[in-house]
This record gives sequence, structure tokens and C-alpha cells, in this order.
Amino acid sequence: MKELEYYLQQRKKILAFNYINFLTEWDAQTDAAGGSVAADSEYVATLAEMQYRLATEPEFERCVEQLYLKREELDDVQRHEIEVTYRSVSETKRIPVEEYVAYNQLTAEAYPVYVRAKQTGDFQLFRPYLERIVEYCRKQTVWLATDSLKGYDVLLDKYEPHFTQAKYDTFFRVLRDKLVPFVKRKVSTDPAPDWTKQVFDKAKQKEFCEYIRDVMCFDKNFGIMKESEHPFTSGIGTDDVRITNHYYENDLTSAIFSAIHETGHATYERQVDPALNGTLCGGGASLGLHESQSRFYENMIGRSHAFWAVHYPKLQSVFAPQLDGVSTEEFVRYVNRVQVGFVRTEADELTYPLHIMLRYEIERELISGRLQVKDLPAFWNRKFTEYFGVTPPSDTLGVLQDVHWAYGNFGYFPTYALGSAIAAQLYHAMSKDFDIEASLADGTTARINVWLKDHVHKYGASKYPDEILRIATGEDFEPNYYVDYLISKYSA
Amino acid sequence: MKELEYYLQQRKKILAFNYINFLTEWDAQTDAAGGSVAADSEYVATLAEMQYRLATEPEFERCVEQLYLKREELDDVQRHEIEVTYRSVSETKRIPVEEYVAYNQLTAEAYPVYVRAKQTGDFQLFRPYLERIVEYCRKQTVWLATDSLKGYDVLLDKYEPHFTQAKYDTFFRVLRDKLVPFVKRKVSTDPAPDWTKQVFDKAKQKEFCEYIRDVMCFDKNFGIMKESEHPFTSGIGTDDVRITNHYYENDLTSAIFSAIHETGHATYERQVDPALNGTLCGGGASLGLHESQSRFYENMIGRSHAFWAVHYPKLQSVFAPQLDGVSTEEFVRYVNRVQVGFVRTEADELTYPLHIMLRYEIERELISGRLQVKDLPAFWNRKFTEYFGVTPPSDTLGVLQDVHWAYGNFGYFPTYALGSAIAAQLYHAMSKDFDIEASLADGTTARINVWLKDHVHKYGASKYPDEILRIATGEDFEPNYYVDYLISKYSA
Repeated sequence: MKELEYYLQQRKKILAFNYINFLTEWDAQTDAAGGSVAADSEYVATLAEMQYRLATEPEFERCVEQLYLKREELDDVQRHEIEVTYRSVSETKRIPVEEYVAYNQLTAEAYPVYVRAKQTGDFQLFRPYLERIVEYCRKQTVWLATDSLKGYDVLLDKYEPHFTQAKYDTFFRVLRDKLVPFVKRKVSTDPAPDWTKQVFDKAKQKEFCEYIRDVMCFDKNFGIMKESEHPFTSGIGTDDVRITNHYYENDLTSAIFSAIHETGHATYERQVDPALNGTLCGGGASLGLHESQSRFYENMIGRSHAFWAVHYPKLQSVFAPQLDGVSTEEFVRYVNRVQVGFVRTEADELTYPLHIMLRYEIERELISGRLQVKDLPAFWNRKFTEYFGVTPPSDTLGVLQDVHWAYGNFGYFPTYALGSAIAAQLYHAMSKDFDIEASLADGTTARINVWLKDHVHKYGASKYPDEILRIATGEDFEPNYYVDYLISKYSA
Repeated sequence: MKELEYYLQQRKKILAFNYINFLTEWDAQTDAAGGSVAADSEYVATLAEMQYRLATEPEFERCVEQLYLKREELDDVQRHEIEVTYRSVSETKRIPVEEYVAYNQLTAEAYPVYVRAKQTGDFQLFRPYLERIVEYCRKQTVWLATDSLKGYDVLLDKYEPHFTQAKYDTFFRVLRDKLVPFVKRKVSTDPAPDWTKQVFDKAKQKEFCEYIRDVMCFDKNFGIMKESEHPFTSGIGTDDVRITNHYYENDLTSAIFSAIHETGHATYERQVDPALNGTLCGGGASLGLHESQSRFYENMIGRSHAFWAVHYPKLQSVFAPQLDGVSTEEFVRYVNRVQVGFVRTEADELTYPLHIMLRYEIERELISGRLQVKDLPAFWNRKFTEYFGVTPPSDTLGVLQDVHWAYGNFGYFPTYALGSAIAAQLYHAMSKDFDIEASLADGTTARINVWLKDHVHKYGASKYPDEILRIATGEDFEPNYYVDYLISKYSA
């Protein structure tokens, strides 16, 4: 097919731009100084325009359309890619180019302003940026509306294909009915144990986090671990997968669980079938599925007694003599305690989904236009008080705590809760094949990695996430595994 | 002019690609893991092809040609830009696109191989890459030859416009005649003083290097200082200018002088007239002029007694009590001692140009085809022994020590010696306007920065370097200022 040849030529350019997007974001969040990000935002805008033009070139569009019509002649991966590309080209076209470019420049500029606003707790500083961002996202729901997707659903579908408001509502209703009353009973107000109130050397934390990457069998020749304000994972293809971390000397475990979490994401990217490199089907299938991997490693593995039975002696030796009097049991109890806190990223496994429900409900109101940005801090605080019984003392600990909205990522948060639930469903399926906890005794997560590779990772984005979940577990998404897992774990 | 409008449109894209080149190189030398660099090299190749196509688009070429013909109607900066662009478009066109793309991928792949070869001292590992690189550079001298530029001159002119082999030969002859006999008399074989043989904490070194950036008035909101194997400066426009450093705990001064050197480069970039941002006339005018700035700050300022009279107490306090018994005089004497060493980047001010002469002569032989890559290590060692009287014990300390050839930067090295000489010429001119050493008493280099901004930096690349030197000093390039400076300094 001559269309295919032309398509593959153009795809190389699209991939090169994906690489550029990866690098510019990685740079903005790690190396670029505050004043530099703004200076670079014009280049970002020009690159966005070039990407827009590339994706909507009439010849490319015709070619994708032709391939779409002949898609039954393609192999499975190509067919999936063409379906996704066909849709994305037709969507991009519906966004006015000036708006697209201006929005890309806006979010590049918004990031350093958001950082300053968060540092100073000054929502008003960030407000004009957020207003323009929300305005654009609302317009997106109009430009990209289809017969089956409207309003907030348009945004939700970008991050988790086929998962609509109706489905999230059902999911969150299950959590609200079964989990909220349980959480309330489990919340502890005990002060943190004394041994946690020490200074834990940053270099030692780093050393242990590098050890964690070894435990998780991550090949360091294909990605570094660096520092940034918020830990994240970023990669391009299977051979360049990087994570960041943040070390707090007054907190022993924050960086450790971030390392496990981000290496979970990184393992997913690394274990995609390398044959998908150079296609548009590389990387994770959706944000929910991605988060299911990081949460799987962080919570189900990383907070288990079986894990620390093997690795706690190493932790003790790195920090010797600071943990000398602390038993494995005490440590595991500490990393699983349930507490009310203001900050999502510091939340325990049990209260975490409540933080997400809060954001989901706020986004729904904002995108529908029923809530305005100017009223956001007050709305946040009221809702938070309703859910948690306490009121954030500042916007830094409230509405400004997450960076996502500064990037315009509305519709992203709900995938975090979804990820935890998918992780529980996968754990249930994996348990049928082997004894997960026993497999940790050999000192690595090797056996778990292989199972996840064969059942989830290898497919990359060559199938939709709900399809992959069905292949991996034999079932559609089922939130009760998650509820059961949490109730059983925290009843123990 | 409608051509100008079209040109400015296209220029935005060219600038966006310059930003991309800056980012990909910054990333390859800092964050990308070994295995990742190779994985990313295909994207680099695709981007190179896109850049090639952009620069040689027939419509763009016609437009640049039209503007070139009407250049007298343009303002000075635009006229210079069009002259340079006209030439570069016509040059790019003469390089076959497949060769251009393959070469960009080759150098991206060569870098990690070079790093491995250097680490293991295994020249044979790197040899096939270097052979292909040299082959391409030889072809370049054919593709880009003109009536006035042939052979090695073609490459020299890329880095230092208007500075040909004939001029370098004259320059190096002056050095050889006047400097070499003097250097031989000044070389010391005394062992390093005992106080230098301590462990100097890396965090403290960093702290002092950040202090140096403050002394040099560098606004940290516009560029970070990071770590890499070799220190370098990289930037885009005046508002994103970054440096790297490398800390050795057994060496107190290496990182300090790198910080001064790189902040010298960075100050040049930062002080270009901001009106040149968004044009192709931003950044430094040439590598020689750039190196003159870093060397000016590093050697003329940073190795002076006047500088340390102000800042040595701070150094003592950061490292207290490690330097307690060491006087300012002893310290300044130490940072100016003359020694024979194998490594260029560790060379003192006096032996440094000999390292450059060596490379210049080797490059001339390689590019002419009189020397083959397979014979390079032996040739290097023979030449080195001739110049320095000692033979490198390994290729790591010999032919593999510099990264430049792995990037294909033949013709680059001579600008390093040129830079030192220009620095001396500028120092002489600046001295007529104010007492440089006395100006350091206020604790910063503010006055020096202003002079360099007004006489050199502000012009960016809107003029040729020889023009700027004439404006700044009232003279053409004159190597005797350099010889006089060195002989007077080291006779004292």
C-alpha cells in the first residue's frame, strides 16, 4: 500500500515531535530555571504549531482516511494505530490552530507562575492563568463533542478511553457506600512514633532508593533517577525511561514509596514489546492502567509485610543506628497507618480515593460552568471539610497543592482512583497464578515483573485499556476487588 | 517587503529547532543514560532531516536570495543575518541530505561509545566511529570549498569566521618562538603542597561555586548549574543560560575554576542585547570570542591576587578548618604553578597553548588525509613527547581525553588558544578605561561585566568577531599582547 509508506514517513516526524515534547517537559520540570521557562515558551508555541500542521496536513489526513477505510487489510497493531490516529487527526482539525498554539504557550507560561503561587499560597497570582486554562478546556468539550461524548466526558476519554462520567459515578458510588464509613472507623489520631522524628540523611535516602530500583530489576543503563519538586516518570520508547524523586530529610519514607511508585510506572514502559518502538502504540495504554502499575508496586507490594521482611534489614543498615530499636512489624504498621491529611500525595492507601473523589466532583462543576475559578478556593475548602472534617489552613495545602490543572489536565485525576482499583483486580488475577508474597523471598520483584509484562505491559498502547484488562483478568472492570482488598487489609 | 515577512515566519521555525538542538545536546550530556542516548539517536536523525528540509526549502531559498540582493535596504542587524543565512543555506544545499542525516545520527551514537572508550582506554572501540566522522569532515571540505576557502580552512571558518590556517600558523609561530623557550624555564616539578592533599567535601565545593556565580553577578533565575562529566555552558537566548560543573573531592580548585570559566561564557550569553532574542544574531559571535570571555574571567581575573584578596577568606570559611594555615599568597601561587601534565583541561595557563598547538597540527594532518585514524594514537603520543618531553601512559590520558572529535568538531580546538590571546588583548584595552584589579575590591565583577557588555557582549552575533574585536580594542587581532601578558605574569 503506497498510503502506508507515506504514513510511515510522516509517523517518524510525529514520533520525533513526541520526543521533543518529552524533552521539553522533562526539562521544564527539572533543569529550566524559573525565568527560563517563560523565555522558552515561545519556542514551545512554535513547536506546537508545527505539530498541529503536521497532524492536519491535507495529504496526511487523506492518507490516514484511506488507511482507515482499508483497515481490515492491516495487522492488529497497525489497525489499532490507524483507528486512534484517524480519530486524533479529526479531533485536532476541529481545534482552531491559533487557540491550539496560544494554549500550548499558555500552559508553558503557567507552570512557573503556579510554582510561585503554591510557594506563597497566593491563589490570585495563578487565577488569571487558570481561568484561561479552564476556558480552553470548556471549549474543548464543545469542539470535540460527538454523539456519544459530551461535556466532561470528552476530557475523561482523553486520559481513559471508554471510561465516562456514568462509569466513574458508579465506581465512586461503590467507594462512597462501602468505603467511606469504613475509613471513618479506621482513622487514627495517634501521633507519629518517636523514631520517625529524626533527620534522615538525603544521600542515604538516595542510596536506598537506588537499591529499590535494583530490587525492582530496573536496568539503570536505560534511565536515570533525578530530583524534582514532584516525583514523576517520563520516557520515550522502551530504552529511555526516567524517574524523579524528592527527598525530605524529616521524612524517611516519602522518597522510598515514591521510588517504588515511579519505578512501577517505569517498569511498565520498559516492558512494552520493543517491536512497538517507532510506532504510535508504544508506552502505556491509558493513565488508569499506568497508575494501576505504580500503585500495584507501591501499595500491594511495597507496603506488604512480605516485602519488608526481606528489605527492612537493608534499610536498617543504610540508616544505622537510627532504626536499631524499630522492628519490621513497627515499620510496616507505620507505613500503613491511616490518617486524615490535607495533601493527596501524602495520603495513605485508605483515604487516598477520597482525595480523588473531591477533585472529580470539583472538575465536573468547573467544566460544566456551574463553578467559576474565582470561587474555587472556597468551594475546595467547603468540600474538603465535608469529606474530611477539617479545613485546609492555606491554599498551598488546599487547592494549589497539585500541578495538574496548571498543565490543563482536567479529566486526569479520576484515573488515579481507577488505577488503585485496577491494581486490586490484577492482584486478584495474579494470585491465581502464583503466590505473590512468597515470590518476594528471592529479593526481587522479578516474578511479578514477568507476569505483568506478559499480561499487561507487552501490549503497550496497541489495544484499549479495557481490552487489556479483560485479557489480563478475564473480566471487565470490577471495583469490588478494590473495596474487598482494602477492607480485608485494614481489618487485619 | 513581503520576502521579509515570509522570512521571519520561517525563522521562528529555525529558532525552534535551535532550541531543540540545545535541549537534545544538554540532555545527552547530562540526563540521558548510556543506553538511552543510542535509543534517542533515531529521533535526532529525523529532526536533523526536518531541519535540513526547512533550511533548503526552495521557497525559503528564493526568499533569502531576494533579501540578499536587496540587503542594502535592511538595517545593520538584518543585513548581517541575511548575509550569514544566505551563505549557510547555500552551504547546506551542497551537502547531500542522506549524508547530513546519517552524520547527525552517527555523532549522536558516537558519544556514548566515546565515553566508554575513554573510561576503558580502548581506542579501538571508538575507532570505527571516528573513522566515519573524519571521513565526513573530509568530504565537507570538498562540498563546501570556495575560491577562498579550501581544505582545513573550510572547517576552521565554521568556528572562527575569517580565521584561516595562514593566520593560525602565524599566531602559533609567535607562540612557538616566544613562548615555548620561556615555558620550559618555568616548569616546576615540585610536588603539590600538603594542604592540597585533603578530601574537599563536594557539597562545600558546590556552595563555593554558587558563591562564585553571585560574585560574577549571574542571575540564577535564568540558568542552573548542574553536574556533568565535563563542564560546559549551553543556552538559548539571553534568558536560558546554563552551566555544568564536575566536582573532584581530591581537588579543591578544579571545580572553582570551571565555575569561573563557565560563568564567563554564561555572562557573555546573558549580556547580549535582548533585542537580538528571536533573531539568528543572538549568542556569541564565534567560538574564539566566546573562549576569550571564559578565559578572561578564569585566568586574568580568577587567578589574580586581587581577586583572592577579596574572596579567599570566604573560601577558608566554607572549608574551615581545612585551609586555616594556608595564606592567600600560598593559595594564589598554587593556582598559578606551571607543570607538565597530560590533560589539556587541567593544564595551567602557560602550558595550555601547547596542548592546543598539538591538536591543531594533528587535525591538519587528519583532514588533509596525510594521517589516518588508525595511526592517530601513535601519532598523538609521538607529538606529545616532542612537545612535553613525556609520553601519555594511556589513550585515556592521550588521544581519548577530549570529547570534541566524537562530535565531529574538527577546527574547533584552535579557537581555544585564540580565545586566550583575545582575552589578553581585551584586558589591555580595558585597562586603559579603569583599574581592573582595583574594581574587584567591591566584591563583584560588576564593573568588568559592564565593560565587556558594552564593548563585546551586546553585539551578540550581529557582527563578525574580528569586527567586534576592532570595535572593542581599536585594533586587529594581535598575539603579542598574549605573549607579553604571560611573560610578564610568570616572570613576576
